Amino acid sequence: MIQTKQDFFTAVKERRSYYAISKESDISDQQIEELLANAIKYAPTSFNSQSGRVVLLLGENHDKLWNITEAALREIVPEENFGPTAQKMEGFRKGYGTVLFFEDLSVVKSLQEQFPTYADKFPDYSLQSSGMLQYIVWTALEIEGFGASLQHYQPLIDEAVQKIWGIPSDWKLLAQMPFGKPTAHPGEKEFQSIKERFKVFK
Amino acid sequence: MIQTKQDFFTAVKERRSYYAISKESDISDQQIEELLANAIKYAPTSFNSQSGRVVLLLGENHDKLWNITEAALREIVPEENFGPTAQKMEGFRKGYGTVLFFEDLSVVKSLQEQFPTYADKFPDYSLQSSGMLQYIVWTALEIEGFGASLQHYQPLIDEAVQKIWGIPSDWKLLAQMPFGKPTAHPGEKEFQSIKERFKVFK
Repeated sequence: MIQTKQDFFTAVKERRSYYAISKESDISDQQIEELLANAIKYAPTSFNSQSGRVVLLLGENHDKLWNITEAALREIVPEENFGPTAQKMEGFRKGYGTVLFFEDLSVVKSLQEQFPTYADKFPDYSLQSSGMLQYIVWTALEIEGFGASLQHYQPLIDEAVQKIWGIPSDWKLLAQMPFGKPTAHPGEKEFQSIKERFKVFK
Repeated sequence: MIQTKQDFFTAVKERRSYYAISKESDISDQQIEELLANAIKYAPTSFNSQSGRVVLLLGENHDKLWNITEAALREIVPEENFGPTAQKMEGFRKGYGTVLFFEDLSVVKSLQEQFPTYADKFPDYSLQSSGMLQYIVWTALEIEGFGASLQHYQPLIDEAVQKIWGIPSDWKLLAQMPFGKPTAHPGEKEFQSIKERFKVFK
């Protein structure tokens, strides 16, 4: 049983999306790698399929990701509207690193073949599992003093990412998480009434 | 920033699937409701859409869920193979309560209308968000001394659930989480090598 009540809930409440981040870090790269390895290891997956895959980009590799994303966006966003996009890319590039989240579709496919009755469900389970893994990493990074956010520039950048970092073709990119030491705090968040979202029958 | 390093990681490592559960609880029903309300409130969603919906079934309502699931399964599982299924249902019924996870498809649809460029992405984001919410609830329940597991008997039970508890038709059922005080611990879990799942470029 887990002994650690308050702290988990503190982490849940304080996790936010940070867009103002810097290239500083309170922990070593080795510690970041261990944090990610543990998140990958202990994130639950249906049928213990362990379909989640992660790539950590640091240093020049982090910068390069946001350069290729900016270049890809430049081809589809009209020049006259590109200012805010360029600023956003510059914001992410200012971060310390980026975590790329993938799901290994060969694992999903193998489950579909083994359990044809649930074949149509496995892609959904895979997405839900990835959400769990993303959440653990997000919260864990913020516990270590980073601010992070979740971005979605797939499939625009898939081909470049696959080519530059030699990603297996079965790894499907689902999300990008730039992180770095926060230089500003996020604003207040608006919450919908819980009564509209939660029903109890007892 | 979150101040509470070790404890979050302890929670992440110790969360497991518990199938042997009882009708005991270390906390009040009011505390269970607060735990769920906080999980719903603080789980992240893309565009802060807050699409997650939760139903908590306690007491007779919990039992009824597993009765209707058993009845629905009896219609599709051959009589001669029903033994293990009946045992599984009895195991869940022995628990203290069940959390039902839904996504409000009207929220997803409204995002698709507001942001047509990302229309095909919102259903995936919704599933990933639900995974995050499921994970928070799972871990939070185990911190409070419960054991829990994640089950998927939709769409088999959707109609009955909707009818019995008056669930809005836009709420799509994604998962069921029976929980109760553990009466036995799960076995060892097998882990795939992290090297096959995680790449670092620095």
